Amino acid sequence: MPIISLITDFGNIDEYSGVMKGVILSVNPCATIVDISHNVGSQDIVQAAYLIEAAYKFFPKKTVHVMVVDPGVGSVRADVAAKIEGHFFLAPDNGVLSLLLEKRDVELIIKVENKKYFLDCISPVFHGRDIFAPVSAHISKGVQLEEFGPLILKDDIKRINIEKPCVSYKGELVGAIISVDRFGNIITNIKKTDLNNFIKSRKKEVVFQVGGCKIGGLSEKYTDVKPNKPLVITGSRGYIEIAVNCGDASELFSAKPGDTVKIL
Amino acid sequence: MPIISLITDFGNIDEYSGVMKGVILSVNPCATIVDISHNVGSQDIVQAAYLIEAAYKFFPKKTVHVMVVDPGVGSVRADVAAKIEGHFFLAPDNGVLSLLLEKRDVELIIKVENKKYFLDCISPVFHGRDIFAPVSAHISKGVQLEEFGPLILKDDIKRINIEKPCVSYKGELVGAIISVDRFGNIITNIKKTDLNNFIKSRKKEVVFQVGGCKIGGLSEKYTDVKPNKPLVITGSRGYIEIAVNCGDASELFSAKPGDTVKIL
Amino acid sequence: MPIISLITDFGNIDEYSGVMKGVILSVNPCATIVDISHNVGSQDIVQAAYLIEAAYKFFPKKTVHVMVVDPGVGSVRADVAAKIEGHFFLAPDNGVLSLLLEKRDVELIIKVENKKYFLDCISPVFHGRDIFAPVSAHISKGVQLEEFGPLILKDDIKRINIEKPCVSYKGELVGAIISVDRFGNIITNIKKTDLNNFIKSRKKEVVFQVGGCKIGGLSEKYTDVKPNKPLVITGSRGYIEIAVNCGDASELFSAKPGDTVKIL
Repeated sequence: MPIISLITDFGNIDEYSGVMKGVILSVNPCATIVDISHNVGSQDIVQAAYLIEAAYKFFPKKTVHVMVVDPGVGSVRADVAAKIEGHFFLAPDNGVLSLLLEKRDVELIIKVENKKYFLDCISPVFHGRDIFAPVSAHISKGVQLEEFGPLILKDDIKRINIEKPCVSYKGELVGAIISVDRFGNIITNIKKTDLNNFIKSRKKEVVFQVGGCKIGGLSEKYTDVKPNKPLVITGSRGYIEIAVNCGDASELFSAKPGDTVKIL
Repeated sequence: MPIISLITDFGNIDEYSGVMKGVILSVNPCATIVDISHNVGSQDIVQAAYLIEAAYKFFPKKTVHVMVVDPGVGSVRADVAAKIEGHFFLAPDNGVLSLLLEKRDVELIIKVENKKYFLDCISPVFHGRDIFAPVSAHISKGVQLEEFGPLILKDDIKRINIEKPCVSYKGELVGAIISVDRFGNIITNIKKTDLNNFIKSRKKEVVFQVGGCKIGGLSEKYTDVKPNKPLVITGSRGYIEIAVNCGDASELFSAKPGDTVKIL
Repeated sequence: MPIISLITDFGNIDEYSGVMKGVILSVNPCATIVDISHNVGSQDIVQAAYLIEAAYKFFPKKTVHVMVVDPGVGSVRADVAAKIEGHFFLAPDNGVLSLLLEKRDVELIIKVENKKYFLDCISPVFHGRDIFAPVSAHISKGVQLEEFGPLILKDDIKRINIEKPCVSYKGELVGAIISVDRFGNIITNIKKTDLNNFIKSRKKEVVFQVGGCKIGGLSEKYTDVKPNKPLVITGSRGYIEIAVNCGDASELFSAKPGDTVKIL
């Protein structure tokens, strides 16, 4: 049962994601299609890059992950397909693969060009339907990546500048808020491993600072603090998160993506 | 793998669409169910008519498309099933099929009456669950349309008045905004073919007018203009759209469904 | 074709529900996954309890219904699996099963403890992914409930206090608003059978009161009254609802969940 996952910024009102599924099933009636999210912020490539990094490893190998967050649709930017750690990825070459390309085992990247696998008419405003959907379905049927176009070197793929936490001249670990989830949990760009390294280099307990407020120590679970009290925790993605037990941390701290988080 | 597509105005909060899927899978465990949209505006038959027209042709033939946008549920209005261009459609007889019936090859329309294919108890407030879901599943299993009830003539189906673009006494092509998508793209009721015919009849280049503003010429892709600049483009549905490269046209022009768009 | 249904409060933006599906399909590639709702109010156990009660019976027996509305995730509260009326249910032991346990044929309840069926690493903030998803997939493959952990007595399961309608000292039937659906229909906790019993005990016709307003008599379908007029009706869940034909009752009556509804 081949699986195709979808990440787009199409939302849940228009027909766009449904139409992609119609095309996929026209090519491969046996595909199982899974929505990861259609509610990436409009043209928010960074958010999409984080989403796929968080999600792909929980799918079976050989899953075809399709990402359509594509402000440059129809322009000269290429469409690319990659095989990374046994999974397939299909996306515009606009940086959405940046986190996946960073440190992992990249087996193959190709430029998607072979029109044999596209719909007959290509709208320059909807490659999701006319290129990504049919190509993903063909990949899910076992067509080799090399069939879709020429190889590209990893270094020729566009990367976006994804901010990383760093240690300031004051000796603080400075990170940023990546996103806020439905519960108001504040997700930072500080990995648990970053924090562990920072802690090792310190003599005293760490204190987390968001907005003007400070929170001491790392908790294991939400209920380690009383209801409506804030805490810092390792989130399900492996990044440090600031939460409120039974409450909304982004509201409490008036925090939003892009804001700075410090570990003192 | 029989496919059933769903268009409803049930939203994504309540259990209504999930329950329809439970009923469908109870009748046909092999059905693949695809959501086109559950976020049609409450009881907005016109929007649903446009959605299905945009979407159906990207699904394989024999797909059963179910439309539950049904302000008259439980009243005397009939439930109908149709075969049009090799696809099946199931809907209340309230005009939602108007665009499909307009110019296409309509093979068969029947009134859905045979209670043998309904759930045992019919709630007069939820035909989606008690009639459309089981009937769609039976159609997807190959039951012939004639089994569900008597034939109806195409002329006896309810049509709604869907506004068409027309040439004004000043020689302008006057259309209307059908909808605004998630990106703020303004979708008009002017087909590319309408525009082509209009252009042929003119000596000079066309100018598009929305709100008090004018945009000259038709672009091919969003990136034909600089970021945050407006453009006119052929949208993925084949209708003329007004967009802003990397921006929100509906916001820029304070435009909303129902507003007039002119081509001068 | 084993079916797994999902009710969560994860929303449609984050990757959480998609990731659960990736895990499910990794364990059982043949599972058909149905979303009932991912938009239960954040940590709203009562709403989830009503949703599953309304939905489960429309799925085939042996469906595995997974409920992840879980403010206490990671704490001492147990995860439980139950077999009730031929369906499987998997949920935190926090009261979300209360309505199902009330009057029905409960065949079996077990505490989910056998780590053999969990993901290797258990995040204390996401049992949905690391415990519920793989366990539901194993149940859908036919693993016996007893395999997952020890039996629990029905009386040892946590129940939440779900308000029931009652007859006041004035002889009125007093209920509460459970929820408001996408159409603005007001769903009460008064079952049709409660109303029937109340009517039998009365000499005169009943009058419904919501906010300061009164509505006489029970209608069968929305169109029994003119457009924009209110009515009382038996909703699709079998509970009494207050609606407005082609309109929004919650807006008209400024009604919200928790408010009182009376039958005089």
